[in-house]
Amino acid sequence: MKIGLDTMGGDFAPENEVLGALEALPELQENSCIVLFGDEKLIKAVCKKQGADPSCFEIVHTTEIIGMHDHPAKAFAQKPDSSMAAGFKALSSGMIDGFASPGNTGAMMAGVMYTVRTIEGILRPCISCFYPFIGGGSGLLLDVGLNADCKAENLYQYAILGSLYLKGVTGMEAPRVALLNIGEEESKGNLLMKAAHEMMSKTNHFHFVGNIEGNEVFTGKKADVVVCDGFVGNVVLKMAESFYHLALRQGIETDFFGKLNYESHGGTPVLGVNAPVIIGHGSSSPKAIKNMILITEKTVKAKLVEKVKSVITKTAFPDNAG
Amino acid sequence: MKIGLDTMGGDFAPENEVLGALEALPELQENSCIVLFGDEKLIKAVCKKQGADPSCFEIVHTTEIIGMHDHPAKAFAQKPDSSMAAGFKALSSGMIDGFASPGNTGAMMAGVMYTVRTIEGILRPCISCFYPFIGGGSGLLLDVGLNADCKAENLYQYAILGSLYLKGVTGMEAPRVALLNIGEEESKGNLLMKAAHEMMSKTNHFHFVGNIEGNEVFTGKKADVVVCDGFVGNVVLKMAESFYHLALRQGIETDFFGKLNYESHGGTPVLGVNAPVIIGHGSSSPKAIKNMILITEKTVKAKLVEKVKSVITKTAFPDNAG
Repeated sequence: MKIGLDTMGGDFAPENEVLGALEALPELQENSCIVLFGDEKLIKAVCKKQGADPSCFEIVHTTEIIGMHDHPAKAFAQKPDSSMAAGFKALSSGMIDGFASPGNTGAMMAGVMYTVRTIEGILRPCISCFYPFIGGGSGLLLDVGLNADCKAENLYQYAILGSLYLKGVTGMEAPRVALLNIGEEESKGNLLMKAAHEMMSKTNHFHFVGNIEGNEVFTGKKADVVVCDGFVGNVVLKMAESFYHLALRQGIETDFFGKLNYESHGGTPVLGVNAPVIIGHGSSSPKAIKNMILITEKTVKAKLVEKVKSVITKTAFPDNAG
Repeated sequence: MKIGLDTMGGDFAPENEVLGALEALPELQENSCIVLFGDEKLIKAVCKKQGADPSCFEIVHTTEIIGMHDHPAKAFAQKPDSSMAAGFKALSSGMIDGFASPGNTGAMMAGVMYTVRTIEGILRPCISCFYPFIGGGSGLLLDVGLNADCKAENLYQYAILGSLYLKGVTGMEAPRVALLNIGEEESKGNLLMKAAHEMMSKTNHFHFVGNIEGNEVFTGKKADVVVCDGFVGNVVLKMAESFYHLALRQGIETDFFGKLNYESHGGTPVLGVNAPVIIGHGSSSPKAIKNMILITEKTVKAKLVEKVKSVITKTAFPDNAG
């Protein structure tokens, strides 16, 4: 398997990217290799500084950079030889199996739309995030920020995507899927959640367990996959991440709080698109980059795309989706 | 000032209510007294068990109870001699200055609507909650669950209510009001937040500081009053409260985590109605009841109703509210 990494898009590029890739190497499976997209000279310089042999990577030399302030959609047309554009080209052609970048999120999504595109039948892709359970293990939260205004149909598809993805990544037979709501009963919530609950309660696409509330997310007692719109998911994700820092401010370091730190998962998989794409924080540390690469490997192995296609083409939608 | 307490509505009534009231007594101001609504015999029995003289309270004897499973709206008509109905009657007539109950939340809101009612010009009341800043001090979050589907106009009024309330309670000159959003820029967020931002950015009713994100709530660096719809607010509140328990599970007890526990604030003030009303958890401990009583005293002292009326009648709405 070939895992592509954009080394030029992050705030500390390419140093943190190359350092993270070096850290990831010993943890990857035997048949996996990392393909670095970026300025070959700079990449080799970081390797040299670390006493590492650059030939442990494949390097695709690029001359342009899509920065954090580039216009997401325009950057692609204007910078065809950027590390990000080259990565997506390689992903689209099958030269690499998955692509990860800590670069401009908007440009990453533009890259997805211009190259690998959304899986046919998926209304809108989403981004997802692993989060820890207090007793060990982890759940998947989605959407964590791509679509701030959702319809019930979107949430229904997120549930399919999240369920298949978690199954693919962990081998879990039937992940428990819940809606993040403000009451247990099906009559609770806003209009969106009521409609989504009605749609999901009839499903045989995933193991729907009903609503959970904000205090039940991290217990892991009720759900493995937590579905919400991208507005709620983003607020929840950022708040959860902040508890890592809030704990640190109080001198507290625990395994659980550590896992709330974005570095521990490293990136958010984009689900519902035709190839594995992982988006990381712009300010990713080497540790975050390492974990982003590892999650990309897992995502490739999950073979989500084929699985989603088979479900979506069989029954793109529940009967009452109209 | 007379503070009314429903002693019969909670899960551990009237024991925890009376115990909490006894604990609150020494912390109240000299001219404050507590009026207990409930079964006089049971109330006196709890006092006796504690070696307390029941005459430290005023007691309004009632014979009926609105339970957690009573139908909120019907309960009021069907149980006119319940502790809750009697409390609202007393509040409405001015016999008491504020009313607190750990009882059926739906019935409490029905009580509000049937008796004291919404302040003229306020589209929808909301419920609010104090939360701690990591460096000390506290902020106010609203709406935390009354209105799951909001319009920008509702959020605008919540901002007025929250700002005036915090000013009244703390004496703070111009509380910083922010929208809880998924990006700092005004263009970020869902349709609701974009519309609310546009409306608030022109306001002179409160000190609007723009958007804050989920990771900025507990730092207190940017905002004192955080405004969101009741869906998001309820998810956030319950998740925040859960971190008290998540910390405990890890053997961690700190001042900050302790303040995330609902017991430390005891109740959520209902804002936008014609008298101070505080709703507590059904399972309130004596400590929670004590703090609910103390917050009721503060809320009465804040004289929010008159302040809101003067703002709302002057300029019920910003120009672009239509």
